[in-house]
Amino acid sequence: MGFNSIPTVEDIIAAHKRIAPFIHRTPIITSESIDKITGASLYFKCENFQKIGAFKKRGATNAILCLSDKEKANGVITHSSGNHGQAVALAASEQGIKAIIVMPDNSPSVKIEATKDYGAEVVFCSASIESRRETVERVTKETGTHFIHPFNDYDIIAGQATAAKELLEEVKDLDFLIAPIGGGGLISGTCLSVKYFSPNTKVIGAEPKEVDDAHRSLQSGKIESNETTNTIADGLKTPLGDKTFAIIRKHVQEIITLNESEIIEALQLIWERMKIVVEPSSAVPLAAVIKNKKLFEDQRVGIILTGGNIDVKSALF
Amino acid sequence: MGFNSIPTVEDIIAAHKRIAPFIHRTPIITSESIDKITGASLYFKCENFQKIGAFKKRGATNAILCLSDKEKANGVITHSSGNHGQAVALAASEQGIKAIIVMPDNSPSVKIEATKDYGAEVVFCSASIESRRETVERVTKETGTHFIHPFNDYDIIAGQATAAKELLEEVKDLDFLIAPIGGGGLISGTCLSVKYFSPNTKVIGAEPKEVDDAHRSLQSGKIESNETTNTIADGLKTPLGDKTFAIIRKHVQEIITLNESEIIEALQLIWERMKIVVEPSSAVPLAAVIKNKKLFEDQRVGIILTGGNIDVKSALF
Repeated sequence: MGFNSIPTVEDIIAAHKRIAPFIHRTPIITSESIDKITGASLYFKCENFQKIGAFKKRGATNAILCLSDKEKANGVITHSSGNHGQAVALAASEQGIKAIIVMPDNSPSVKIEATKDYGAEVVFCSASIESRRETVERVTKETGTHFIHPFNDYDIIAGQATAAKELLEEVKDLDFLIAPIGGGGLISGTCLSVKYFSPNTKVIGAEPKEVDDAHRSLQSGKIESNETTNTIADGLKTPLGDKTFAIIRKHVQEIITLNESEIIEALQLIWERMKIVVEPSSAVPLAAVIKNKKLFEDQRVGIILTGGNIDVKSALF
Repeated sequence: MGFNSIPTVEDIIAAHKRIAPFIHRTPIITSESIDKITGASLYFKCENFQKIGAFKKRGATNAILCLSDKEKANGVITHSSGNHGQAVALAASEQGIKAIIVMPDNSPSVKIEATKDYGAEVVFCSASIESRRETVERVTKETGTHFIHPFNDYDIIAGQATAAKELLEEVKDLDFLIAPIGGGGLISGTCLSVKYFSPNTKVIGAEPKEVDDAHRSLQSGKIESNETTNTIADGLKTPLGDKTFAIIRKHVQEIITLNESEIIEALQLIWERMKIVVEPSSAVPLAAVIKNKKLFEDQRVGIILTGGNIDVKSALF
């Protein structure tokens, strides 16, 4: 099993059915006061309430359920210091499959503990992409585990597509759907769900200016990288992959970039007005709406709040 | 209209029907991970998602709808630097009634603006109980407005009772229901709803040690006050009134007191695990469960999360 080409409408419907017992159907929340501020009608898909606190549980679960029996028996490996690692750890544990998560040795202990708590083995690498790649290759060779890429994988993309699918099922006639862009797994899936289930909706990407690689990639026509990654939106630092870039290039209407103070303002607005905890990456799409009031005025706009994993102890008080 | 004696079951049912168009029926949330930590089955009634961000909208709306036409024509007045003031401001505005809110002149500007945004006139007093009392008396005499007490009022108590009523309608056979205690309006109403709708449920009060006046009042048999009010739970600093004390004395099983670090730990747990924003007062009941694991082990426990109004800009980052 597993997809070797861009997921079809049947693939996404099948993925949704496959993962449904292992994910929450998260609520969609509206906010009168934020609608008043923006002049738009906003529908927030709350993946901060998803299992492990982020949409990543969808893709990881689909990827693991799509493995062959032999692959399942050998276990899985991935690299991640964040939500994808925890998602793979929990999804593997639910299926009784061994998981190895490669994490930089300077990861916050709270994230290391959370990953272990979900039942995974943690293997450390140095905090460089080179060390990460070498460690994954070495451990994969030693253990025969199957590598699950965080985003550049059609099974992952089909899983992430289910968040937009649920939103489009419950809220009809959206003019826009906005998702943040990191490696592009979420927005690629979002593009496909929009194409299949609500083709008149326009997909907009939102990205921090500090890591505007996707914006530049659309302009140059090739995958660009970031020289620095000084953004509070720590889930969005990764460059695109070839699979996600191809989908984004074809289907994303526009990528709006935001500076750090715009992201923080939107983050505070969500916490204060909606009374929910989201991580900084989640606030980037709302920042895009606030910055482009005219574009979104009187429009029906879906926003995917990607997650709520934040170290409250260090952020608060 | 308005109650001159302890609300009956019919009074609370009528209050609920009366205010229903003007309040949210707030969600009840459970958390697998917090249940795992506490060993209890917890049901959180999320009044942080209530209009104005706190349960106070219930009582204020009921009190205003119970006024005579003459009283409505003259407008209302109250004193509050917090949720009650905003609740009266919005409830009055919804009914086309004038509202005057007396606030200390050192109130945070964010609270003053919020109160004005809901359409009320703000009159300032000095930051002493004496100045507050004098100001309310003077303005009441000058304007003929009707005073709405923040808690020591049967219409307010009947309104606050509707939060527990909704919880008891949706979650059957609760062993315990825990609410925090400030002036006692919420817990008095909670006691009455439990008495009428779920008499086998035990009501527990939760109170910061720093302002343990209600705990001491139960022991001494008279209303005690607090010499200092050094608690992060700023909604719980007020002593009881005679009406709330009489109900609490008769119906509250026990009052559990918590120190500041216990309250902060519970607050962080709610933000981090449940991904919702609550104010410190809301965390006191969960702190009581964590501190008394044996008492609540394997029990079905309702908790009222009272509100979510926190100055995120100063609390966060």
